[in-house]
Amino acid sequence: MDEAILADSLLVERRLAVEDAIEDLVASTMDGTDAPAMELAKEILLAGGKRIRPVLALLAYEICGGSDISEVMDFAVATELIHTATLIHDDVYDGAKLRRGVQTLHEKHGLDRAIIGGDFLFVLGFGLGGRYNEQVVRIMADTSASIANGELKQLQHVGDLSTTPEDYYQIVRGKTAGPFSSGCECAARIAGAAADEIIAMRDFGMELGIAFQLVDDLLDLTGDERMGKPRGTDVHEGKMTLPLIHSLTLLHGDGRRQLAELLSNFSDNRWDELESLLTESNSFEYCRLLIKNHLERALENLSIFQEGEIRRVLENLTQQVMTRHV
Amino acid sequence: MDEAILADSLLVERRLAVEDAIEDLVASTMDGTDAPAMELAKEILLAGGKRIRPVLALLAYEICGGSDISEVMDFAVATELIHTATLIHDDVYDGAKLRRGVQTLHEKHGLDRAIIGGDFLFVLGFGLGGRYNEQVVRIMADTSASIANGELKQLQHVGDLSTTPEDYYQIVRGKTAGPFSSGCECAARIAGAAADEIIAMRDFGMELGIAFQLVDDLLDLTGDERMGKPRGTDVHEGKMTLPLIHSLTLLHGDGRRQLAELLSNFSDNRWDELESLLTESNSFEYCRLLIKNHLERALENLSIFQEGEIRRVLENLTQQVMTRHV
Repeated sequence: MDEAILADSLLVERRLAVEDAIEDLVASTMDGTDAPAMELAKEILLAGGKRIRPVLALLAYEICGGSDISEVMDFAVATELIHTATLIHDDVYDGAKLRRGVQTLHEKHGLDRAIIGGDFLFVLGFGLGGRYNEQVVRIMADTSASIANGELKQLQHVGDLSTTPEDYYQIVRGKTAGPFSSGCECAARIAGAAADEIIAMRDFGMELGIAFQLVDDLLDLTGDERMGKPRGTDVHEGKMTLPLIHSLTLLHGDGRRQLAELLSNFSDNRWDELESLLTESNSFEYCRLLIKNHLERALENLSIFQEGEIRRVLENLTQQVMTRHV
Repeated sequence: MDEAILADSLLVERRLAVEDAIEDLVASTMDGTDAPAMELAKEILLAGGKRIRPVLALLAYEICGGSDISEVMDFAVATELIHTATLIHDDVYDGAKLRRGVQTLHEKHGLDRAIIGGDFLFVLGFGLGGRYNEQVVRIMADTSASIANGELKQLQHVGDLSTTPEDYYQIVRGKTAGPFSSGCECAARIAGAAADEIIAMRDFGMELGIAFQLVDDLLDLTGDERMGKPRGTDVHEGKMTLPLIHSLTLLHGDGRRQLAELLSNFSDNRWDELESLLTESNSFEYCRLLIKNHLERALENLSIFQEGEIRRVLENLTQQVMTRHV
């Protein structure tokens, strides 16, 4: 096998290891007193998902010299539990009908059980984090608090056509890139990494996470069946993503007024109009360029690590974010 | 001053110490990046409340020989944060309008912000818990998971006239007595208590917590303006509390049929009817006797500790649960 295939097969292996660990946790919980809450939570937890956060944690641990994956696995699983908890709660207040291709908890079981199911995954995640040192738990808590603040800022800017790129970046750092960054950082710490490696992993995660969210926002506009959610969800919800913010900033006169009116009264029969305005302001191109820049900076942060299989997997994974096959 | 007054003034002191610590935490958070989430959460967090969980944690720490309250204070505050998080989320799905005398978060700010505000307090609580050892974090997580499971069981039994006393006790251990118990147990552990003291504190908290919930359920039926919620909230929501379960078990024939019909179609003009049925089955008396038994068992667990001011405060606090002046 050539190196690229080797790296891909290693990525698959890590993803399976994460999947196994999550399934083991679910199975052992279903034997105990927490079975009712897990019965609910597992509907979303086991419905797939890319597992990119826990896989990143494993790889960050390994590239920093960690040799016993079981040492970092609880942390890796905790990142997925906390992520899934936020998805369950987001879906409640977004009124989403599907998540990971299955019915959302609140749709199937009601508001009360969806809120409790999300709470349960939060505390389960923090429970797993408890075996690590104070610093790791503190970073996990700070990261989760930043998710809450990012989401609040996002709500505050719903339908706000004066949202700036700075607002956008603050939201993205809080709700998406922060968890990527702290996941890589904590995994490095668990591996006993040197200070410069910890910083490189933290910055790698941040750049990768920003790119990841930008791709997500772009796919919402360009459409992609792999996303598992209908095209234009963000636009319908009034979420101010960077392509829209950029276009609102670049367009003038009639174009600006047309876009503002369009965003305030969007409907699915107006996609062509929206696409034409975003193309006129070069906003798709602008976002693709930004994604490329963030991914290049992510790759630069990997350059301090020894070349080898793990670094190659992380590089591949970074490059795949652009095409979102991860 | 006589001993009782001394003990009361110590209780007030501890409550003020908790209040100060919570206010300090809020103030320091309002200076940082978590300000938006705290801005929301503090509306409920600072609106009063009995602070019985954190006060119990301080006293449990002290009775086990802990001499530096600052050592246990983060844990004590964490118990109140997590408790408040569950109240905020409960209120969302109960559709409650008031909490601690102020408007609930979802009423004032909407479903989304109320869910996020609760999530924020959860993670803030677990962040504070991170400074303690793995065992304490694990117990905190297990306790919070049991709250979720207790609430799910309670939901499952809403309007279920065949709910048994065993079901009721399982719900109460999960959602109320469990947190009391684990709070006292963890505080004892933080104080470096001996094994028998840890067990005594754990059992003391459990008995006290069960009594506390039974009093709560009784007050919902008998009415008490100190509760800060309208009489009969539980009955209107179809919650199966022990007085109702007991009465349904004891009554036969017409009485049983009348009570079943009454609970299924309750309205405020039927209070006299309900009271008369509960009196006929001696259900108020039965619950008062149970409360007394649980409080006596709580007191027995204190008997292994040295007599002195702290033990006297805990004894007073236990006795006050009956009259709910705590």
